[in-house]
Amino acid sequence: MGKVIFHNSVSLDGFVAGPNDGPGNPLGDGGEALFRWYFSGDTEVQLPGSPALKMSKRSAEVFLEGIRTIGAMVVGRRMFDIAGAWGGTPPGEPCFVVTHTAPQEWVKEGSPFIFVTDGVESAIEQAKAAAGDNSVAVSSANIAQQCIRAGLLDEIHLAVTPVLLGGGVRLFEQLGDKPIELEQLAAIEGDGVTHLAYRVIK
Amino acid sequence: MGKVIFHNSVSLDGFVAGPNDGPGNPLGDGGEALFRWYFSGDTEVQLPGSPALKMSKRSAEVFLEGIRTIGAMVVGRRMFDIAGAWGGTPPGEPCFVVTHTAPQEWVKEGSPFIFVTDGVESAIEQAKAAAGDNSVAVSSANIAQQCIRAGLLDEIHLAVTPVLLGGGVRLFEQLGDKPIELEQLAAIEGDGVTHLAYRVIK
Repeated sequence: MGKVIFHNSVSLDGFVAGPNDGPGNPLGDGGEALFRWYFSGDTEVQLPGSPALKMSKRSAEVFLEGIRTIGAMVVGRRMFDIAGAWGGTPPGEPCFVVTHTAPQEWVKEGSPFIFVTDGVESAIEQAKAAAGDNSVAVSSANIAQQCIRAGLLDEIHLAVTPVLLGGGVRLFEQLGDKPIELEQLAAIEGDGVTHLAYRVIK
Repeated sequence: MGKVIFHNSVSLDGFVAGPNDGPGNPLGDGGEALFRWYFSGDTEVQLPGSPALKMSKRSAEVFLEGIRTIGAMVVGRRMFDIAGAWGGTPPGEPCFVVTHTAPQEWVKEGSPFIFVTDGVESAIEQAKAAAGDNSVAVSSANIAQQCIRAGLLDEIHLAVTPVLLGGGVRLFEQLGDKPIELEQLAAIEGDGVTHLAYRVIK
């Protein structure tokens, strides 16, 4: 079975989106700073359905290695809505969306989305089965928190960006008050970003 | 004038102490994980008034470079109390303590402590004058927050440690909701720790 990995950019003060995020403001106020490193170099990275990114060479290596092994994705309904369903091209497929009710316009033949109404544990289980030996990518903070509490997360991969957002969507909260030990796997200096990877010790 | 630099170890979820910190539990529950890197290698580092630390070589270089230039220190009263006044040997001297009232037992000839009752701005100003060309070290989260809000902090140096404490004393909060831009100065992988340094862009 592949690993369940949280991937996202985060501000130094721990936010994955700035204040007032929502449809029309998907990264929240000031949140574009979280992804400046996507455009801070001259190594072109082309993803399906996206404009070309231009990262530093070191960041491109880390980024491509990170997405190379993704076999499925799990997100929360809020991220799905805020991202406008990524116009139908989510960053990982199949994309399992944890929700109370499935939006009928996306329940159709060929949809990259699978709506899971019986909770995060079920979504992770289905995503692992779909991914096979590849990894399951989690990128909603809320889903990551639930996975950590339930012992379902294997690794945390963060792109730490040089900004203090001061508010917004905090990545780490409501984890309980028992320390969770990690093993540091890598710390790689990019250009205007640091790539950190940890294993969650269970 | 020297720079004003925040130095401390922080958990990946942004805490500088675990829950329930206080005298007798200075790092809070689980907070000893923040300083495991002090004892994770075989390079001996001897500080006055402390038992010898044994860090990895890379961490020792970063650590010694960090303390080499310290000419004065500014802390909050809470840290002073919780640390038991470091038994009279604070990690940086002179040590300016921001407080409402000065503890009379430490107001004496030869005391390394100077009690500042008219606020953080005054403490930083006095510490800069005392430090000359050397730096002023800040390590209380609360003082750092006040310095950031007042535009008094020049750099942030963090030792990011592989643990999620889940609660305790958060380093970054109450910063206002306007993003504060940083410049990434260094990201250095140690053994079980990552040393990050940023300049605050004003």
